[in-house]
Amino acid sequence: MKIGVVGLGYWGPNMVRNFLATRGVEGVVCCDMLTRRLENITRLFPSVEVTTSYDELLQRDDVKAVAIVTPVSTHYALALKALKAGKHVLIEKPMTARSVEAQELLQLAYERNLILMVDHTFVYTGAVRKMKELISRGDIGDVLYFDSVRVNLGLFQHDASVIWDLAPHDISIMDYLIDQKPISVSAVGIRHFNGFEDIAYLAVHFAGHLIAHFHVNWISPVKVRKILLGGTKLMVVYDDMEPSEKVRVYDRGVDVKEEETVYKTLVQYRTGDMFAPHIDGTEALSRMTGEFVTSIQTGKRPIADGEAGLNVVRILEAAELSMRSGGRRVELTPWQVYDGARTSKLA
Amino acid sequence: MKIGVVGLGYWGPNMVRNFLATRGVEGVVCCDMLTRRLENITRLFPSVEVTTSYDELLQRDDVKAVAIVTPVSTHYALALKALKAGKHVLIEKPMTARSVEAQELLQLAYERNLILMVDHTFVYTGAVRKMKELISRGDIGDVLYFDSVRVNLGLFQHDASVIWDLAPHDISIMDYLIDQKPISVSAVGIRHFNGFEDIAYLAVHFAGHLIAHFHVNWISPVKVRKILLGGTKLMVVYDDMEPSEKVRVYDRGVDVKEEETVYKTLVQYRTGDMFAPHIDGTEALSRMTGEFVTSIQTGKRPIADGEAGLNVVRILEAAELSMRSGGRRVELTPWQVYDGARTSKLA
Amino acid sequence: MKIGVVGLGYWGPNMVRNFLATRGVEGVVCCDMLTRRLENITRLFPSVEVTTSYDELLQRDDVKAVAIVTPVSTHYALALKALKAGKHVLIEKPMTARSVEAQELLQLAYERNLILMVDHTFVYTGAVRKMKELISRGDIGDVLYFDSVRVNLGLFQHDASVIWDLAPHDISIMDYLIDQKPISVSAVGIRHFNGFEDIAYLAVHFAGHLIAHFHVNWISPVKVRKILLGGTKLMVVYDDMEPSEKVRVYDRGVDVKEEETVYKTLVQYRTGDMFAPHIDGTEALSRMTGEFVTSIQTGKRPIADGEAGLNVVRILEAAELSMRSGGRRVELTPWQVYDGARTSKLA
Amino acid sequence: MKIGVVGLGYWGPNMVRNFLATRGVEGVVCCDMLTRRLENITRLFPSVEVTTSYDELLQRDDVKAVAIVTPVSTHYALALKALKAGKHVLIEKPMTARSVEAQELLQLAYERNLILMVDHTFVYTGAVRKMKELISRGDIGDVLYFDSVRVNLGLFQHDASVIWDLAPHDISIMDYLIDQKPISVSAVGIRHFNGFEDIAYLAVHFAGHLIAHFHVNWISPVKVRKILLGGTKLMVVYDDMEPSEKVRVYDRGVDVKEEETVYKTLVQYRTGDMFAPHIDGTEALSRMTGEFVTSIQTGKRPIADGEAGLNVVRILEAAELSMRSGGRRVELTPWQVYDGARTSKLA
Repeated sequence: MKIGVVGLGYWGPNMVRNFLATRGVEGVVCCDMLTRRLENITRLFPSVEVTTSYDELLQRDDVKAVAIVTPVSTHYALALKALKAGKHVLIEKPMTARSVEAQELLQLAYERNLILMVDHTFVYTGAVRKMKELISRGDIGDVLYFDSVRVNLGLFQHDASVIWDLAPHDISIMDYLIDQKPISVSAVGIRHFNGFEDIAYLAVHFAGHLIAHFHVNWISPVKVRKILLGGTKLMVVYDDMEPSEKVRVYDRGVDVKEEETVYKTLVQYRTGDMFAPHIDGTEALSRMTGEFVTSIQTGKRPIADGEAGLNVVRILEAAELSMRSGGRRVELTPWQVYDGARTSKLA
Repeated sequence: MKIGVVGLGYWGPNMVRNFLATRGVEGVVCCDMLTRRLENITRLFPSVEVTTSYDELLQRDDVKAVAIVTPVSTHYALALKALKAGKHVLIEKPMTARSVEAQELLQLAYERNLILMVDHTFVYTGAVRKMKELISRGDIGDVLYFDSVRVNLGLFQHDASVIWDLAPHDISIMDYLIDQKPISVSAVGIRHFNGFEDIAYLAVHFAGHLIAHFHVNWISPVKVRKILLGGTKLMVVYDDMEPSEKVRVYDRGVDVKEEETVYKTLVQYRTGDMFAPHIDGTEALSRMTGEFVTSIQTGKRPIADGEAGLNVVRILEAAELSMRSGGRRVELTPWQVYDGARTSKLA
Repeated sequence: MKIGVVGLGYWGPNMVRNFLATRGVEGVVCCDMLTRRLENITRLFPSVEVTTSYDELLQRDDVKAVAIVTPVSTHYALALKALKAGKHVLIEKPMTARSVEAQELLQLAYERNLILMVDHTFVYTGAVRKMKELISRGDIGDVLYFDSVRVNLGLFQHDASVIWDLAPHDISIMDYLIDQKPISVSAVGIRHFNGFEDIAYLAVHFAGHLIAHFHVNWISPVKVRKILLGGTKLMVVYDDMEPSEKVRVYDRGVDVKEEETVYKTLVQYRTGDMFAPHIDGTEALSRMTGEFVTSIQTGKRPIADGEAGLNVVRILEAAELSMRSGGRRVELTPWQVYDGARTSKLA
Repeated sequence: MKIGVVGLGYWGPNMVRNFLATRGVEGVVCCDMLTRRLENITRLFPSVEVTTSYDELLQRDDVKAVAIVTPVSTHYALALKALKAGKHVLIEKPMTARSVEAQELLQLAYERNLILMVDHTFVYTGAVRKMKELISRGDIGDVLYFDSVRVNLGLFQHDASVIWDLAPHDISIMDYLIDQKPISVSAVGIRHFNGFEDIAYLAVHFAGHLIAHFHVNWISPVKVRKILLGGTKLMVVYDDMEPSEKVRVYDRGVDVKEEETVYKTLVQYRTGDMFAPHIDGTEALSRMTGEFVTSIQTGKRPIADGEAGLNVVRILEAAELSMRSGGRRVELTPWQVYDGARTSKLA
């Protein structure tokens, strides 16, 4: 099979490089309106084919799937067209600019039995996979909180707040690590320069004893990418700026005892060893493109599927609404594909 | 003059030690209901006088002032009694459990012309004073945000949330550094173990382009005490866990240009040198007790006066209310002492 | 039993405090020529007895042992007198200014059957004990190297080079951790200000495949206290400046394979997890004074006995000689107490 | 002009990439015995010409200069041939395996009036250039010491000790930063696995009050690249592992006072601000290739010229000799090109 890559700006060439090295891919067809970019990609990777016509790309039978690496405002229209043309679709994060758009794409992919996947690169890193492994094995215990900080001196976007730029990374990590469904979102933010929030704080609320919080900031003098994950058994610090030992697991926690005699709850803390597991260094993007191709071949649902993409978009959208209404909680109502036309539901 | 120190638990002995070394203090009279503690303080500081009777302490003419270092729930009643007895009063932070209590104390101190001060120790550290100096000199420019993280594996309090335990430090620093008055507070938190929030996120809102945010957490495996302060000219990172170089000043920021031709705002960032000023290592508590005594002698208002104490309590109270009502913004209405009985207003 | 503490300068009061809290000690008698210091120690610890006469102290029957906490040049004479008076002796490190002095003290203590111990405080820290445990259990494998850096902006001594001031700490740690006997020492250093070396590099050589190296420096702008310990199975970094996780154990190393076909040795490295064991936080000095008293009571040899003290002095002395002779290797010839008068040898 | 690049292993392709982007270079001709490597470089950079014949390369008139990026044992023979063919020569560090070889190349380049340069990449980094600027401006004062640590879990070389692999970087930095000529070298090292030293400590001695020391180690579990530079006015820490703030300048030092009354030298230390200058992020290799081309065009001597290359080789050679003879000091006798055939000396 061949893969079409649409959009050869900053991230597109990385996609091309990884698809070229992915088993099962026989060729990459690059599509962009700017011929300058197509010339450039040909220089870097002489084996690729190029076209300026998206329609032409979709008409080719040898192109079974397309990767959409364009600005977020164009994701929906391009993906819709591709799905209608019977192509499997991979979309750069965030999946779409509105949740209704993501829902429509999910529904369509479901009906046509096509793979719909989002490039949540971080869930394919060795560090996040190691954290998932610790949680799945039960080592962490119940998750108590997820606290993320992603700040730096950042390039201001001309069409969106810092939430849409930085938070998708951490929300996709949270969506992958935590099995519970969030029920509401609250957020506060502030605008300083160009009409879009450059600092924001998001809280994601769950039914149980769990909170997730995200600090995103474009005007920090230092670069921080850090997640604290507290569990009843172990706690984890994931610091992506560490050259090695990105994930540190602490045997620290809280012990709660019900003391009969004093009729009150004794809460004490416990301090044990720290442990930094060796992290697999395979490039996340290569693992991601590999899973896309495997999913197409086998029908197996990818980790970062359309539903994961929708989850992220819904939280971003709710956060934006909350910011615009004084920080009040915005509910996340359940949603799933309508299966009138098919018998099996998405798990 | 002699100073009475009420409450000889964890912090009281430090107060005693510093008052004994303060110029102008002729003696310290220690007061506690537990004789065990009084015996202990006598062993440590043989020169102190002791008493188990607070009333007796207040009746002494040589005791001009008292320092109240007892649990927060008792601050109001003890301070009220002291002010009524004509004593100057220093109160451990947070000043009171409710803002109306703080307001009553402020009004009374104003009417009786007595010094009312709060032990906001951090505003007397070399690090915070250096930051104040940078702001006052105009080096920082306009403050854009104040972001604080104070987390660790902490001892759970039996009668209050993490907000009342950890946030007073950072809110008092913010109150000292930032000249603007906050207008509202929103907060989210979560309880896991004993009915009180052990994690909370507070946002303090101002009229202009400024936000302050506080993350406090008792169940973090690692200890973090860090403040980011963004200004239009310089940005500061204050890391209290650093053994040296606690304050780092970055010549980094955002440049905004109005481009006529493209009809849009260009926002770019700028990266320059970093600078870690030498920090005065004088013990903060000694500077604080010194200012209390000087204020009594000269009538000069201390930095951490009753009003500062009230500011902190009002924000804590509003944060608690916001947490209990889904994170909505709680307004902070202006308040000041009623000066019907006196002519001069507090500056 | 009572303990005499001789020398109440900087370190002496810590000794007093710990002996007062040591089980089996009925009292502490403080001795110093300066009455000002004796007044001060009485204020801090009202229960101590004081004297300005060392002879008087040694004549007391209730004083079974003395701790000598005076300048190094006086250690030998004071310890000799104490041993001759039948007292057990604890000496501040370094044990003596010359190895022959240490040898004479060792011989005398052996003949009189008295405990002779040196205050190598670091070997009583939780961190160093944990490293010893890892080595003793065989977890580290064969030790390949011991590399120590101890540098800071330091107070210049008026009578000795940086070697005698800083290196005893790390050499005593090495002597405790490594079972092999060193065979020679080489060192280079440089003097800048007052006629004594303020920077020095010491290498300690062993018969087998092992080297120990020490960098000590009084004119470093930053404070570093770090030891790397390489083993065939695991490697350790001990960073004493880390507030927590002082000891980090790395499952990293070198794999050597003899490849038959290519007739050469293939050397590859291996990277696994990192592990930071929880470190016992008991004050090292309290553990040290405890062992001294236990040794007196039971006759059991302390870890930091006179022989350990001698080992450190011999290396310091050899390093000084090597520095004065262009860095050539200075041999360490075997030495042990002469047991003509007794049957059993020191192990 | 065109540049020939000989050796397309690990480092060669970086050279090619930078020469292709260097102003004044019209083309790059790649030479390697392995056609697989030539195919690979053509795929990466379609514009390059390739040849398997070094002689053919040297015969081309359009190729004015060659960059030799082959194993060190081949540097001398390849460079000699190139200089004899009238080509300017850039050699990968270390320049040659023996100092006599380097001397012969220097003499030949001098006689033929050709540029001879060594790829001491680090002296072209923003960090090292900033340090040079601080020294040249007199900000540092007199340099007191240069202490370098370069350790990691490294790939063992099959034909040389760790000295030849890691130390050239730091020695070339020292040679660039320090104006004085070293007079002798002493070194100790140890072999564990394959007959070559995997850990070594080098000391370079100068006539005045200056010492340089280098710790290189292939079996360290952690990666350290750190240089301490002490001066009479300021001190510098250069930590190449820091993502930002690689160079930290400390206003710390030693003050020496001659006190008349006490007839002794008082040495005290001073602690002031710390300052991390913004570092130019231009790729060092691009600056290096740029200087090579400019030197060819203008005749201006490059910073990392053949003499710098020789200085490094002589220290490596002396260190190796010292290691093989028990660490004794090996003298570095002065050397310079013989200018019987030319009038002007090398400055």
